[in-house]
Amino acid sequence: MANRKRGRQSFFLEDPPVITAWASVAGKKEAEGPLGHTFDVKNRDAYFGQKTWEQAEKHMQQQALKKLASKAGMGQKEFDLVFSGDLLNQCIGSSFTLRNTGIPHLGLYGACSTMAQSLLLASMAVGGGFAQKVVAMTSSHFASSERQYRFPLGYGGQRTPTAQWTVTGSGAALVCPEGSGPKITGCTIGTVTDLGIKDANNMGAAMAPAAYATIRAHFDDMKTAPEDFDLIVTGDLGQVGKEMLLELARLDGVSLGGKLTDCGTLVFDNTKQDVHAGGSGCGCSAITLCGYLLDQLNTGKLKKILFCGTGALLSPTSTQQGLPIPGVCHGVCITGGR
Amino acid sequence: MANRKRGRQSFFLEDPPVITAWASVAGKKEAEGPLGHTFDVKNRDAYFGQKTWEQAEKHMQQQALKKLASKAGMGQKEFDLVFSGDLLNQCIGSSFTLRNTGIPHLGLYGACSTMAQSLLLASMAVGGGFAQKVVAMTSSHFASSERQYRFPLGYGGQRTPTAQWTVTGSGAALVCPEGSGPKITGCTIGTVTDLGIKDANNMGAAMAPAAYATIRAHFDDMKTAPEDFDLIVTGDLGQVGKEMLLELARLDGVSLGGKLTDCGTLVFDNTKQDVHAGGSGCGCSAITLCGYLLDQLNTGKLKKILFCGTGALLSPTSTQQGLPIPGVCHGVCITGGR
Repeated sequence: MANRKRGRQSFFLEDPPVITAWASVAGKKEAEGPLGHTFDVKNRDAYFGQKTWEQAEKHMQQQALKKLASKAGMGQKEFDLVFSGDLLNQCIGSSFTLRNTGIPHLGLYGACSTMAQSLLLASMAVGGGFAQKVVAMTSSHFASSERQYRFPLGYGGQRTPTAQWTVTGSGAALVCPEGSGPKITGCTIGTVTDLGIKDANNMGAAMAPAAYATIRAHFDDMKTAPEDFDLIVTGDLGQVGKEMLLELARLDGVSLGGKLTDCGTLVFDNTKQDVHAGGSGCGCSAITLCGYLLDQLNTGKLKKILFCGTGALLSPTSTQQGLPIPGVCHGVCITGGR
Repeated sequence: MANRKRGRQSFFLEDPPVITAWASVAGKKEAEGPLGHTFDVKNRDAYFGQKTWEQAEKHMQQQALKKLASKAGMGQKEFDLVFSGDLLNQCIGSSFTLRNTGIPHLGLYGACSTMAQSLLLASMAVGGGFAQKVVAMTSSHFASSERQYRFPLGYGGQRTPTAQWTVTGSGAALVCPEGSGPKITGCTIGTVTDLGIKDANNMGAAMAPAAYATIRAHFDDMKTAPEDFDLIVTGDLGQVGKEMLLELARLDGVSLGGKLTDCGTLVFDNTKQDVHAGGSGCGCSAITLCGYLLDQLNTGKLKKILFCGTGALLSPTSTQQGLPIPGVCHGVCITGGR
C-alpha cells in the first residue's frame, strides 16, 4: 500500500474519488440570490411544511438526500455511508434525517466547515476502499441558528455590521471510486486556530486565521501555489473575514488576490439582500458547492479549485463564559470532471 | 488496492492498525469504582482546577492527550490527527482541547458512541495510509451533562430508577500502522435506529435496538458469531439496556449471554455507588476501553472483543418537542496484542 500522507496535514489520493452527483435545497432568500438558478429544490416556506425550525432543517436534509439519489439514478438504500453534521445542538438535523433509513451514518461536528470535512472523510472512506457510495452532507437554517446562538427572532435585535446571515439550505454530494464527475485529488486537515477573537457577531474574523493556516499548509504539503488553481473558495468568511484572509496572506508574502472567493459573498447579493457581511452556516458552502461550483467543475468552466470549509467552533456557553472563538478550516482540492 | 468493504455496513482491515498506547483520566466517583486501579490520572476535584465544568471537561481531554503522548514516548506535536468529540453543545470540550496545539483535528458527534466512532475512523485513516499517528479521544462530565441535558445540579431533582450516571472521565487511544499492542481488525458502521422511546431518563432502552442492529450486522457482514469473541462489550446501555439487548438477541435466535458485558455496568459498583441503572456518557466506554479492556487485551487475558459504542442521539430541544430518541452503535473488533 502506497503511503498517501503528504506533509504535516495533507493527503493525496492516488485513485481520485469522483463526485458523481450533487444536490442542493435552498430557502426563499437564498433562491432570490445570485445563485438561485443553481439550486435543485427551492422552498418558500421557512418551516418546509414542518412544525418546528429544527424539523424543517431535518426535512431539508431529507430532500437533499432524496434529490441526490434521484440525480445519481439510484435508491437511497444503495448509499453505503453518510457523513453528515449540522449546527443544531447534538446535530439533531443529521441524526433525525438518517433515523430508520438503514443507511450507515457517521456524525460530524465541524461547525460551518462540515461540507469540506464530510467530503474529506468521504474521500478517505472511498480512497481507502472502505466504502463505495458515500454521501457528504450538511445543512443550516437561519431561524434555528438565530434562536440557538443569538436571540429569539421575535426579539427583533439589531444586527451588527460584521454579522452574517445564516443560510437556510442543505447540500449533499455523492463520492464514488469511479464514474463521471469532478474528482477529489487531495485534502488538507485543519488545525484549531484561535487568535483570541471574542465577538460572536464577527465570525469572519475568528475564522480567517484558520482559513489561512489551512491554505498555507495545503500549498506547503502539496508543493503547490495559488496560480495552480482557478479558484480558492472559502466557506463563509463573509466580506470582513475575506478581507482579513487576504491581509494575512499578504503579510505572509502570498498573493491570493485574483483567485480567492468566498461562498458567503457569492450566495447573497450583499447590496440588495441586507445580509450585512454575507452568508454563513454549514449550508452556505454546502449549497454553493453542491450547485454552482460542482456545475462549473463538471462542465470544465473551472478546472481546479481548493474548497476550504471554514468553521467557528464556539458555543453559546463558551461565549457566555467569556472565551474566545476557535476556528478551523479543512481544504479539499477538486478538479474538473471532463 | 484490495476492496476492504464487507457486506452492508462493515469493513475489514488487511493490515490491522495497532493501538500502541492508551490513556484514561477519571473523576473521584469513577476512581472509587471497581475499575479505579486501571485509570492513569485520577482527580478528586470535579472542576479539575478550572473555573467551569465545561473547562474541566476540556482539561480532562488535555490530560488524556498529554498522558497518551508520554505513554507512547513521543511529543504531542508528533500526533498526525485527532478524531474527537463530546456531549457538550458544539463539542467545545474537544475543540478547546485542540486549539492552538497545531495538531490536525476532525470533530465528531456520535453522542456516547464517540469512542468507538473515533477508533473506527482512526483505523480508516491509518488503514488507508492517510495518516500514521492518529488519536481517538472523547470525554464526558457528570456535572456539565446534567446541567445541559436534564436539570441544574442545585435543583436536586430525584433520579428515576432507569436513569444512568454520566461518567466524569476522558479516554484516548493512539492508532498506528505498526508497533506493539492490540489490533483493530474490522469495524461495523451503525445505522440510526429509533423504535420510538421518548423517555430521556431511559437511554438504555433507546440505545439497545441500535446496539443489537450493529452487533447482528457485524456477525452477518463478517461471517462471525458470538462464540468467536471473548467479550462483546457495549458502551453504556446500563443494566436496563443490557437486559433489553439480551432479550432482543434472544427473540432473534442469537445467544449473547455468556459473552455480553456493558461498560455502564463495569465502571461503577451499582450496589454501593447509587448510580441507579449504571454509568453512561462518552467517557464511560472511553475510560473502560482505555484502561481495563486494552490492558487485558495487551496482556493476552482477552484475545478478541467486539467493542460497541452506543449513543443516544437526542437533544434537549428534540425531547422538549416530544420527539423520540434515535440510537446509534458502532462496532470495532479488537484482538489481543501479543
